[in-house]
Parts: sequence; C-alpha cells; structure tokens
Amino acid sequence: HNVLLLTLSCLLKLNEDPTVHGVALHLSENAYSNKILNAVKPEKDVDGVSDVNLGRLVRGDTYNCSISPTASAVMELLEKLVKTVDGKKVLLVGTCGPLEASLQCLLQRKGAMTMSCQWKTQQLQSKVNIFLSSMVGTIHRSPHTTVRNCLHLLGHRITCTFMTEHARLCLHCFQVWFRRNSSSTRDSMDNRLWITPTPLGEGKSTVTIGLVQALTAHLNVNSFACLRQPSQGPTFGVKGGAAGGGYAQVIPMEEFNLHLTGDIHAITAANNLLAAAVDARILHESTQSDKALYNRLVPVVNGVREFSSIQLARLKRLGINKTDPGTLTADEISKFVRLDIDPSTITWQRVLDTNDRFLRKITIGQANTEKGFFRQAQFDIAVASEIMAILALTTSLADMKERLGKMVVANDKNGQPVTAEDLGVTGALAVLMKDAIKPTLMQTLEGTPVFVHAGPFANIAHGNSSVLADKIALKLVGEGGFVVTEAGFGADIGMEKFFNIKCRTSGLVPSVVVLVATVRALKMHGGGPNVTAGAPLKKEYTEENLQLVADGCCNLQKQIQIAQLFGVPVVVALNVFKTDSHAEVDLVCEIAKQSGAFDAVPCNHWSAGGRGAVELAQAVRKAASQENSFKYLYNLELPIIEKIRIIAQKVYGAEDIELSPVAQSQISRYSKQGFGNLPICMAKTHLSLSHQPERKGVPTGFILPISDVRASIGAGFIYPLVGTMSTMPGLPTRPCFYDIDLDPDTEQVKGLF
Amino acid sequence: HNVLLLTLSCLLKLNEDPTVHGVALHLSENAYSNKILNAVKPEKDVDGVSDVNLGRLVRGDTYNCSISPTASAVMELLEKLVKTVDGKKVLLVGTCGPLEASLQCLLQRKGAMTMSCQWKTQQLQSKVNIFLSSMVGTIHRSPHTTVRNCLHLLGHRITCTFMTEHARLCLHCFQVWFRRNSSSTRDSMDNRLWITPTPLGEGKSTVTIGLVQALTAHLNVNSFACLRQPSQGPTFGVKGGAAGGGYAQVIPMEEFNLHLTGDIHAITAANNLLAAAVDARILHESTQSDKALYNRLVPVVNGVREFSSIQLARLKRLGINKTDPGTLTADEISKFVRLDIDPSTITWQRVLDTNDRFLRKITIGQANTEKGFFRQAQFDIAVASEIMAILALTTSLADMKERLGKMVVANDKNGQPVTAEDLGVTGALAVLMKDAIKPTLMQTLEGTPVFVHAGPFANIAHGNSSVLADKIALKLVGEGGFVVTEAGFGADIGMEKFFNIKCRTSGLVPSVVVLVATVRALKMHGGGPNVTAGAPLKKEYTEENLQLVADGCCNLQKQIQIAQLFGVPVVVALNVFKTDSHAEVDLVCEIAKQSGAFDAVPCNHWSAGGRGAVELAQAVRKAASQENSFKYLYNLELPIIEKIRIIAQKVYGAEDIELSPVAQSQISRYSKQGFGNLPICMAKTHLSLSHQPERKGVPTGFILPISDVRASIGAGFIYPLVGTMSTMPGLPTRPCFYDIDLDPDTEQVKGLF
Repeated sequence: HNVLLLTLSCLLKLNEDPTVHGVALHLSENAYSNKILNAVKPEKDVDGVSDVNLGRLVRGDTYNCSISPTASAVMELLEKLVKTVDGKKVLLVGTCGPLEASLQCLLQRKGAMTMSCQWKTQQLQSKVNIFLSSMVGTIHRSPHTTVRNCLHLLGHRITCTFMTEHARLCLHCFQVWFRRNSSSTRDSMDNRLWITPTPLGEGKSTVTIGLVQALTAHLNVNSFACLRQPSQGPTFGVKGGAAGGGYAQVIPMEEFNLHLTGDIHAITAANNLLAAAVDARILHESTQSDKALYNRLVPVVNGVREFSSIQLARLKRLGINKTDPGTLTADEISKFVRLDIDPSTITWQRVLDTNDRFLRKITIGQANTEKGFFRQAQFDIAVASEIMAILALTTSLADMKERLGKMVVANDKNGQPVTAEDLGVTGALAVLMKDAIKPTLMQTLEGTPVFVHAGPFANIAHGNSSVLADKIALKLVGEGGFVVTEAGFGADIGMEKFFNIKCRTSGLVPSVVVLVATVRALKMHGGGPNVTAGAPLKKEYTEENLQLVADGCCNLQKQIQIAQLFGVPVVVALNVFKTDSHAEVDLVCEIAKQSGAFDAVPCNHWSAGGRGAVELAQAVRKAASQENSFKYLYNLELPIIEKIRIIAQKVYGAEDIELSPVAQSQISRYSKQGFGNLPICMAKTHLSLSHQPERKGVPTGFILPISDVRASIGAGFIYPLVGTMSTMPGLPTRPCFYDIDLDPDTEQVKGLF
Repeated sequence: HNVLLLTLSCLLKLNEDPTVHGVALHLSENAYSNKILNAVKPEKDVDGVSDVNLGRLVRGDTYNCSISPTASAVMELLEKLVKTVDGKKVLLVGTCGPLEASLQCLLQRKGAMTMSCQWKTQQLQSKVNIFLSSMVGTIHRSPHTTVRNCLHLLGHRITCTFMTEHARLCLHCFQVWFRRNSSSTRDSMDNRLWITPTPLGEGKSTVTIGLVQALTAHLNVNSFACLRQPSQGPTFGVKGGAAGGGYAQVIPMEEFNLHLTGDIHAITAANNLLAAAVDARILHESTQSDKALYNRLVPVVNGVREFSSIQLARLKRLGINKTDPGTLTADEISKFVRLDIDPSTITWQRVLDTNDRFLRKITIGQANTEKGFFRQAQFDIAVASEIMAILALTTSLADMKERLGKMVVANDKNGQPVTAEDLGVTGALAVLMKDAIKPTLMQTLEGTPVFVHAGPFANIAHGNSSVLADKIALKLVGEGGFVVTEAGFGADIGMEKFFNIKCRTSGLVPSVVVLVATVRALKMHGGGPNVTAGAPLKKEYTEENLQLVADGCCNLQKQIQIAQLFGVPVVVALNVFKTDSHAEVDLVCEIAKQSGAFDAVPCNHWSAGGRGAVELAQAVRKAASQENSFKYLYNLELPIIEKIRIIAQKVYGAEDIELSPVAQSQISRYSKQGFGNLPICMAKTHLSLSHQPERKGVPTGFILPISDVRASIGAGFIYPLVGTMSTMPGLPTRPCFYDIDLDPDTEQVKGLF
C-alpha cells in the first residue's frame, strides 16, 4: 500500500487510480495556518516564536498535518474537502471503526460515496492516524485510534467508552493485562521533573510532551505521557491554561483545561458529601436520645428491621457480634449510635474547584435550623482533597474503596480517629468515584497518546499523576516502550515524593530522571533580579550573561545530587528560549555533565515539536539502558521525626529540624494511633530548597521549622507543614476570565492560554 | 428478513442456516430474572409488585428482553453467550456502526468471527434494538442507536459525541433543523403533570416514561420523553434515586442519578466562579486606588496596553466611547474601575450539589487575607442556581451567553443593578456551560429515546425541563410524533409556570395536558390521615374507601379547571397501585370525566411497562387531535402586583394577596429598574393549593402572604416568595448513602433506588 501526499485540488484524480488505497490529505498552508497561529499563540513569557515557526508549515511535511486546530476550525476544513468531492467516490484510509465511521458520515452528508481499507503496519497506521486527525482534528475517536494502534501491536484488545473529546479506558481490560503480564522489572519508566523554578515555570509540561513526541513519532519507540489534570480554579484565576505549549501541546487544549471527563467534579461531590455527613451527624447526635437515634438509624421498613452491611461492619469493629437489631443492649445501642465526634478535632474540610479566597475561613451552621451548632471551618481548592491524593495513589476499585473508608475526618471525645466508614458513607463515595478512577486518554499535537489522570495539590500532597495511569501506560507501550510521567516541582519536592511515596505504592522502578532546566531560572539562582508574572523580564534575562548562569548552576548541581541519592541516572533537559545564547546553552550542559548528569541536552520542542526533542529522546533511551540501583531514601519503620529529619538534611540541606509543640503532640498522637509507619509528604514551598522562597541557589545552615503535622490516612501519608501553606488560591484584580470567551457560532473557545 | 427467538443452546445451529440474517437472543428466564428483580425492586411505598410481575418474565415475550440489568450484569450474560460461540461464526443483527462494533469487539475477544446485516424496516429495527440492548444492556451506543433509528425514518443525519453511557447531541445539527423546519404549529406537545401530591409522590416520572413506551413500542408513533436531571444531593440524602420505576424506567438508572454528563457540575463551577468574582472585586476595590485598579485591570503586556472586548463593552455602557487606555480622564477611570457593589444587596449565592444544611447560613471572609471584609452568606443546592433556570429556558449558545451576562448579582451604592457582564465574567461562564447546553440522550427500558436536560429547583424556579430538549425532540419525532415533557408538581405550580413562563419563551403550544392522579393522594385530600415517607401506610390507604376518594376528587376537579383556564384538553392518568380497588379506580375516572376531563384512564405502566399505558396513549392521541385554544393567563404588560394577584386568585383560589413591606419595596425597585414586564414565578409549597401545606382538598377564602420578591433577570422572571422556601436540603439521621455501595469486581452499583 502506498500513501500519497496531495492537495485538495488533485483529490478527485484518485478515483481513477486503482493503486491508491488511501487519501492522505496535505492541507495547503493558507488553508489552516491562521488556525495554527491561533493554536500556538505565544506563551505569556515567550514571544515572537510563532512567526518563526510558521516557516515549518509551508514545507510539505507529513507531521505538519498533525497540528490540530480546534474541532470547529477543522470542521470548516473538512467542509472544504467534502465540497470538492461532492457526489464522487472517495477512498478513505481507515484506522479503526469509529473514526472511519465519523469521517464517512461527514462525507456522506455531502453526498460522497466512501470506501475504506486498513493499513497493516504500525508506521503507516500512525502516519495515517496523524493525517486523519489533521482532517477531523480533535474529534472524539482520535485518541482512541491512537491507543488502538499501540494495542494492536501488543496483540491487546481494548474497549473504550467515549467522552466528548476523549476516550476513557475501561478498567476491566487493564486489570486483566496486569494479571497477564504483571512483572514490571523490564518496564522503562522515565520520571521527569525540574529544577527549583522561577515563578513563571520552566516548561514542565512541554518537555514531557516534546519527549514522547520525539520518542514515538521520530524514534518509532512506543511511548506514553502521563500528565496531571489541572485544577479549573487557577485556569480562570491567575495561572491560565496548562496543556503544554507551542508545538508540544495536549489536544484538545480547551477540554484539558476545563471539565474534561469530570474527575475533579466527582472528587468535589464525594469530598463534600463526607463533610456534610460529619456536621449533620454531630447535630443529630446532639439533639436525639440513643433510642431515637437507633430507631432512625435502623428503621422498620415494610415490617422488617435490619442493619445495612456497613452498619454490620461497624458493629464488628465495636466488638458487637450481633445481627438482629432487636437484641442489642442499651449500652451496645449507645456505642453503636454515637460517634461522639469532637468538633474541635475535625480535619475534614469542604472543597470547591474555584479560586474563592472568601472561603478560606468561614463560620458554618448559623441558620436556626442548625440549633446553634455553628463552628469555624474552611473550603480548600478541590485538588487539595485527600480523595484526589487517593485517586492518584490507588491501584484498583477495591483498593480505592478501602482507602476512602479509612479516611480520618476527626477524633472522637476519647481521641480515637473517626473515619468515613464510621459515618457509613464509604460505598457512596466509591459510587461517586467509580468513573473518575478510569484514566482519561488524550493525545499530543503529533498524535502520541497521553493519559490525564489525577492532580493532587503539590503543596500539601505528593503532586504526582496517577499510579493507575502509569501502570496502564506501561502495559500499553510494552517492553522497550517508554512512559514519561510528571513529578511536579523541583527535585526537593516532586522527585523526593515521587520516589518515597508513589514508587513505594506502585512498586514501579524509574529508569531515568529527566531534570528540566532553563537559562532564565539558573540566572535567577545566580543572583539575577526578581521575576514576577505579568511584568516584563529584566535585561539580565534577555541578554547573554554567562556569570549569572555559572553562579546559578549550583542549584542544578544540587538537584542532580538529590536525584543520585536514589541511584537513578539523570538526564538534564535544557528548555531553550529564543533569548538564550549558544554560549549560555553550552555552559549549562557542560556544568551539568561535570556535576554527574548522565547527559545534558538542549531542547526546542516548544518551537519545533517532537523534532526539537530528538536529541533528548536519544539521551533518555541511552540512559535507560544503564544499570539502575534505585533505592528509597528512608525506611518506613523509622519514627516520624527521624523520617522528617532525613528529608530535611539529605534533600533540602538543612542543619536540622525544629518542631512546634503542636507538631510534637500531633506526631505522638499519630504514632499512638498506629500511623507511625506511613511515608512523609512534606508541605514546603517549591520556590526554594529551604522554607524561605526568597533564598535562591543552594541555601545552607538553616533550621527547618515544622509548624504542624497532619495525616492523610486514606491516601497513606503524614504531611508536616513547613510554615503555612495556602490551600485556597484567590482571584487577582484582573483574573484570566477577562480574556476568555466563547464564539456562539463556531463554538470556539478564546483566550484559554 | 426474519428474526428468530432462540436460547443460547441452539445458537450455533444458526451458522448452518443461510436464511437467517440475524440473531435475536431470547435469554432464558433463570439467566437474568434475579438481575431483573434487582432492577425492579419495589418502590419504598409499593411492595410485593415484583413477584407479581416476575410471571411476565417467564413467558417468551420479546419485550422481556428490553428489561435491562446493569451494564456489568449484562457483560456476564454476554460472556456466557460468547463462550458458547467460541471460535464460531456468528451473524449479528446490526443497527448502526457503533453498537455493532462494540458487539463484534466483544465477540471477537472470545475468538468468534462475526458478520452483520442491516434491518430495513423501523419495526424490525426497534425490535432488534431492544434485543441487542438486552444483550449489551446499557452500553453507551444504545441510546444513540435508538435516535439514529428515529432519524433514519425522518431522513435526518445526526452526529453524536458519546459520553460514558449516554449520547450527547451536537447542537449544530439541531439548529440546522430549526431553520429547515421552524414552524411549530403542527408540533404535538404533550405536557404532563400531576395533582397536588402526597409527600410520597404519585409517579410523575413513571407516567411520562410509560406513556412514551406505549406510544413508540405499542402504537408505533414516534415519541420522545423530556425529563429533568435530578439533583445529586437528595439522591444521597432522603429522596433516593429518581429514574421512574418498575417497568417504566430510564436506563442506565445509575448514571441518571449520578454525575450523568456533568451538567449540574458545570453549573456549580460557573455559579461559584461568579460568586468568587463578586467578593474578590469588592475586596480589591476597597483596598486599591483608582490608579492602582486601572493599572491592574488594563495592564501593559509585552509593551502593549489595551482593553479586552468585555471591558470595551463596559466602557460603551458607561457612555465612554474611547478605545485607547491612555486617553481616559481620571473621572472616566474611576467610573470604569469601580462597580461600587453594596455588599448588603448581594443576591448571588454560592451553590453545591450536596445536601449540606450547615451551609444554609454562614459567615465568609474571616481569614486575615480578606482584611476584615467578612459578611453573611449562604450556599444553595446547585439546581437552585439561576444558571440552571437559564439552561432550562435558553434557546441557543448566543441566547445563553446573553442571559448569563444579564444576571444581576447585587446593586451598586446608587441602587443600580450590577451584572455578571459588569464583572467581566460572561465569556468564562459561557465557556464553562458550552457542553451543558447540549441535551443528554438516554432511553427507557423499552428503548424509547429520552432527553435529560436541566432541572431547575421547582420551589424558587419554574421547575420544568429544558426548552432546547423539547424543541430538538419535536424535530426528531417529526409531524404526528409526540414529545412528552415534564412539568413538575401540581397544576398550581408546575403547569401554571409551564404555560406562562416556558411556553412564552419557547413559543411552543401544548396539545394535551396529562394530569396524573392516584387513589392514595385523592383519599388524602378527602380527609385521610397524614402520609409520611418511611412510615407504613394507614389502612385507609390500603383498603377500599369510596367515601374518601369521592371527597378527595374536589382537588382533581380543581386541577382540571386550572388546566382549562389555558384552553388545553386534559387527560387524567390514574396511576394504579395494587392496593386500589376496581370500584375506586372507576369512581375516579367517572368523576374526572364529569369534571370536564377529555378522558380519564387507569395506567399500569409501573408493573406492565408501555403495555400498561396503551389506553392512556390512545386517549392522548385522540385528545391531541382536538381543537386547541391555548392562551396565557396574564399579560406581561400588567404591573407585577396585578400578575401576582391573578395567579393567586384564578389558580390558587385565594381571596387576595398581602404584600410585606420588603416585598412592596422590591417590587417598586424592580419596576424602576425596568424589570416590570417579566413573567411571575411563584415560590410556593406544592403540598397545598394554598400556602399552608396542611390545607388539603381545595382551600378557599385565604389571603396569600407575599413575604419577599426576588428576580432572576438572566432567566427572565420575578419570583415572589410565599412564606419561606428552603433552598438547601439537609441530611437526615439515616441518609440514603447507608444503602449505597459499589461492587469492586462487577462495578455494579447497589442501593441507588
């Protein structure tokens, strides 16, 4: 079979040519370049790149077609196409049923007759897939197609349930695969993170995407990216969209930044149902006698009175081995009906996926109907919910349900933990989360498959994407394939938690650490002036300044050393901006290698797509073949304080730690309650290796203050607070929403960058 | 082509028979009866029906196959099937691509080879569709298939984007159809409501579903049901699931009662973004100078300083016709940057789709970061958001965007309304709602298509399903087809609002009013003892009592008279419970006809499916062919007070109305602000025609007290409060969630009834 590159005009000739098995459209530059310009609008902090790249679009290059404007824009293009074939026969390149069907439907609407054929080899398939996706753009089946191709190679079958413009993966299938091929020793896992960043961010997402694009589309290695789902709050607040950028983007970008498949909404619903249950229970217990409570909790329905299964479970925990509600003694009834929650110990907060600063501290229960049981409370941003952390760490429905039940919401008046299970809400929470546990499948501009799943708040949780997505992706890429997964924030935050918490849970061993650096951030660490979002960059950052770069590399060096503590090879990816000079780039790579990095390479994925990250991909593949002596930093059996000290000293470079009285009492309580063997999830700023954001470079000789210690028992970690962590962002004077708009005719979303 | 009914065992024989074009499986009773028992679990207030009906399942009746267990249960059945055909060739009945594809994929997973053929006639198609859905159950494509069949007949084409187990309709297509065939004079619209109910409900949803099942599957009339999406809060609180019941159900029932396609979550996100914007704006204005505000609202980005389009629009409203930020005078700047919101006038509340009584009255902004700007506020249940009312009344994306912008959130210090548009958030709200505006397509147990869209809170909003769904459904059923749409609560609430608000917006004219009555409710109105959920029914309701029924019919009579005020023929549907005696049923129908109903018929859809509502369907079809002299109850130009009085006197039977001082001042404010010509949306209890729930039958001689008057300017109505309306339900001592659970292996949801 052969593929032809052609323009709309000569399309019809195909109908005469019997040797042509497929039409692979190469849309003419002027047909879509403006759409693309729109799609690769310069990021706030990098300008003038798009026009530089427009040159690429003119060359008759198959990968151009992979640049995918928004659905509505593509519909236009498709209309153009089908107009030219009006009433004629068109041979389509079929990849898999659904995509083909949509295409045919669209062509038939214009009266065209269609036929199709299947490509046999992967390479053609993926090319074809790219071509088709350039014609039908972000149409819902495209991601599915992509993964179907991967699966086809692995001889796997997969059923998907489609969401608007994504595919959701059916958990069933994957659990089967785990069983079928559960050893993960040979799995290549590539764990990406970045140096201590500037407030602007250093291109975390773009490197992940550029790397998989390079691996799959240019080196023909099966690869998968696993990203976190961004919180919707900041998207409308100060941060704006987060789908990568330039030619290294996840598409459809709009959906990625909006509701997507509703996972975060599900978390909000589950989290708040539990919160409502806590306060309602306190109210009901305080206003009813044991007998009244018992009659309501175990009512007579159609003449029968019986415990629900979750109530029977509670009876067991209470050591009451009875199943007939009639046989409980007054004392047993009292034990059963009263959770005796101490309101002052409630740690479970309500959440919203909105930047609503006025909910940071509130008083609830002030209506008369709540009979004076008001108390102080707060709303956190939804991604800060423990349920999000659970979603990111769980390995199956059964495991998730167990974790949800174990979540501690408060203590009772004897200091014993009260859980979601005690409140009888475990099953309901699992039901609310039953779809969210399925990773959402999307794709990059170049058609590389991407899993978007979970996005725990990096400040108070571990901040990594989901274990489930990583495991599923590893099965999909097969042996020798690569899974690139995000480990948000610097090595001190993202990587340490990735290794000590996520890897412990998943049992997966990373093959390579990719450390993302930018000249700009290194200059800052070298003593450059402050960088603030919005404000124009100072000239130190826009003009060559080798001294600042050299001085700043101490931070890079430290990050490399931290990675080496875990025995995993490090590849430094220097995310090149157009303002960086060659000398600066070379200097960074030089120093990085001297500092023990396996390799250090510049990347231009932002402006050149996967092609701009080929060198990185090669270095990563080489590093992955190295001997790997991965080890955890600490033993779970160590006392909580010891574990905290190890992280503070070995990772942050602190002299020692200092515990507040609150922190001390919390630690001893958790140890008493039997939670002493959990891993530690430090809640520390990511803007400095220390606890003081303004201290750049490699601070030393500081004492790390631990103000408080909390626990996410369901997620399975203790999190010490280093200073105060805001868990609810606010809206600035001019939020992003001023620029966000919807065109009612094209349904095109504007300003979501 | 011929269809065969056969059991699993003789399936393989088919491969030899060349005349067989399709396999229509008739699963053996014992293979699924327990699943069905589970699916038709008796409702809380009706017991012993399921065993009565189990009889039906044994008979080799094609419609049995339409009873659809949960997806996972069906997967089991399918596994059974494919095991028996292992490696063999199977001829499948194809309806349309996607469904076929899923089936084939599932069979191929078991190594079976498949072929398929298309049925040509509708009847076979719908039968086949029912068979297939009995094999693949609630699999995602089934609803799509159903509508594809309808469309096929109408010569329409439709593109769908699939959601988990539903299909979402692409708005584009339908707008095209509107243009193509916009006159709606011939449209049959059948508007269903019920008499003043008992606290148990009288089978509102089941009649809707039973009726369309009868119309489509038994009378072969194209029909569509338009239902409201239930709020998730009550599902986990006291009410439980709401997907109809027995053999008149919407499937998949679980999804219907959970997140579905996320519309309510989108509303929550949009509503709360606006709320956060209001308080943040007040804070920023109070803590910054005009100059500082201006510099932040119109910043210099990459050297350029310009207004966003929404800011330019605001300048126009302020009468400032300038586009260069540099040219505004100090006075103009001040006018531009200051909304001067008066916190005491904020009417925009935050919402959650959770029954959280502790949020009924709260104090927000108590954190130091909010600098002492705390105030009293509240959370409402999400469906009470004005955005939900807008979703239910809007007719297009452009219209929705305009309504969102017009929403009034507060007054400024000069008493002028402040809108979402003033806050610059209109576009963002539209973006958040861009998918929610697309109705969700589901199906009944018998494969009749159902639109689920919007569900405004009936107490403070108009409580009807969406205009868009009705209009789309009307196009789909085509001429002579029927659309049955819900108008929640009694004629005094649901129907009056349906006619005066929804019909005015949509311009659609209803052909028939179906009034749902139950013997139980009529007995209550006749003076029977109180009825309370959970508690067992008193004998007056379980034993024949003709006197109570006769006395109670006064309420039914009044409801019929109200319907006649609008000039639409009324058909009374008596929802028969197994405890009703023949004499009671006959008596009600007799009195109903004497009272002016076009017809009155008993229905057994709950226990018999569509078949049990055939008589009703025939009556409705007959009534729809009658002359129709539809008219509104009042003129929009009348003063607000007049409009309220007309509703109170003509509909409720009140002597007069009595306005509180607050109500009076609000009315004069709204009149001054130019909102006097909006329709009225009464916020009154549905448990009595009066404002006192305990007054049953037909109360007279009462004065209706109007405590307050509010306005939903975006939705487009004024809503007077009759007494106090709770806008946030609470959790009882034993919420439904005690019985709700998820089986981690089968993914089956339990207890969601």
